[in-house]
Amino acid sequence: MKTISENRCFGGTQGVYSHTSDVCSCDMTFGLFLPAEAKDGPVPVLWYLSGLTCTHENAMTKAGAQAWAAEQGIALIFPDTSPRGEGVPDDEAYDLGQGAGFYIDATQEPWSQHFNMWSYVAEELPALVAENFPLDMDRQAITGHSMGGHGALTMAMALKGRFRSVSAFAPICHPTASDWGRKQFGAYWGDEKNWRPHDATLLMQGGEFDGPILIDTGTDDQFGDLLGTEHLAQAMAAQRQEGQIRLQKGYDHSYFFVSTFMEDHIAFHAEALYG
Amino acid sequence: MKTISENRCFGGTQGVYSHTSDVCSCDMTFGLFLPAEAKDGPVPVLWYLSGLTCTHENAMTKAGAQAWAAEQGIALIFPDTSPRGEGVPDDEAYDLGQGAGFYIDATQEPWSQHFNMWSYVAEELPALVAENFPLDMDRQAITGHSMGGHGALTMAMALKGRFRSVSAFAPICHPTASDWGRKQFGAYWGDEKNWRPHDATLLMQGGEFDGPILIDTGTDDQFGDLLGTEHLAQAMAAQRQEGQIRLQKGYDHSYFFVSTFMEDHIAFHAEALYG
Repeated sequence: MKTISENRCFGGTQGVYSHTSDVCSCDMTFGLFLPAEAKDGPVPVLWYLSGLTCTHENAMTKAGAQAWAAEQGIALIFPDTSPRGEGVPDDEAYDLGQGAGFYIDATQEPWSQHFNMWSYVAEELPALVAENFPLDMDRQAITGHSMGGHGALTMAMALKGRFRSVSAFAPICHPTASDWGRKQFGAYWGDEKNWRPHDATLLMQGGEFDGPILIDTGTDDQFGDLLGTEHLAQAMAAQRQEGQIRLQKGYDHSYFFVSTFMEDHIAFHAEALYG
Repeated sequence: MKTISENRCFGGTQGVYSHTSDVCSCDMTFGLFLPAEAKDGPVPVLWYLSGLTCTHENAMTKAGAQAWAAEQGIALIFPDTSPRGEGVPDDEAYDLGQGAGFYIDATQEPWSQHFNMWSYVAEELPALVAENFPLDMDRQAITGHSMGGHGALTMAMALKGRFRSVSAFAPICHPTASDWGRKQFGAYWGDEKNWRPHDATLLMQGGEFDGPILIDTGTDDQFGDLLGTEHLAQAMAAQRQEGQIRLQKGYDHSYFFVSTFMEDHIAFHAEALYG
């Protein structure tokens, strides 16, 4: 693991690190914020999965999350959204290939060698950070934005017992019924019968998440039709899932929206992590 | 004036606007945050002047200022740092030409036609925003980062009675004795005898600012030698100037540093604006 940068930030340290990823067959970069409390021992962890076109850097610089994580004594991890670099396939569209890993393991050519973001975020990166930083891996929570909200919700439901709470900002809720999902699942996986375990609405219809869920989505989200919020809302209500879906008046899909509600989300996770 | 974008943000609106600038002889872009209170009438104004290489956008997306401005009911204005566009001269160096206006009016070729950021920020832009937004121009304060800290301090001292308070993050304090200053003043102005009114330390030695000053600079600022903090500190103490210079342990020159202390700075200005 190589240190790219470390900056003092809200009494803690915002670091950027790179390493060679076995599952993605390339070098991967991630951001990690450690609050001041990490000097005295392991701290709880909140994962933040980013959306389409983002790298590890967007949320790290624009979401304003460190202020609240520092207040709560929680570490933040910002993984990249896809493999990158020479030899890694890409597509001209912004929503396929690099920057659009969709938090799944590809099986189809040309994607399968590198596009394994599920295994990367669920297995390889947790093992790496657990070994190198003072993190309490028994106290983890997860959040994300848009495509990253899809990643957070599906990981929280699939990896039972791993995360105490899950939240999302304007998540893609029902990718198997959206152009943000069908296109990518089709390209990375082909056969539609593999898709179900990576659709938050379908997962929710088949069971619940053992913890609280918080979702914020703007009423003026310019991608609202692609998100399918109504399907997840229905599934959560039908399952009597503990949680809340908040439609925030006038907000769109941007980081101005994300940063506005970040304090609420981190307070929500802190309650679960310290509860 | 043309609206580039408006995003809901912390209950208010983060806008980006462009207009044709007479003094800079080109189109200029600026960001403006209006808190929710602006619906009910004019709100106080805090100017934020950015540093080298920045546009109107850096602080608007990375400083986390809207959270605290919303809490205090204060508008934020984020001007660009220089003229831009086709026909506007530039230099290969990051610290001269576009992105490096230094908040002065150039007199030398090829700069004098466009590089008039003093007149732009001190006169043209205030008149424009006062006409187009619900701003209480009797209650203004100013802050900035690095080159923008230099701009904030010199404007606050030169424009007597305009600003109730001034603060700065890692400001260039003594440009006439620094490579961040001598190079640019020389290029834009030539003759050294014109420089004095644009050096915060020299201005402070010749008088005081009628209000409080707050300066934060990191002890690990990688540009510390270029800032000349010690000269301004000495001048402020000699003048018995109301204010404080805080050396923040371990912090560098980045927006991770700026965002960490933004809450303090906005609370400081709120006290002066509402006092």
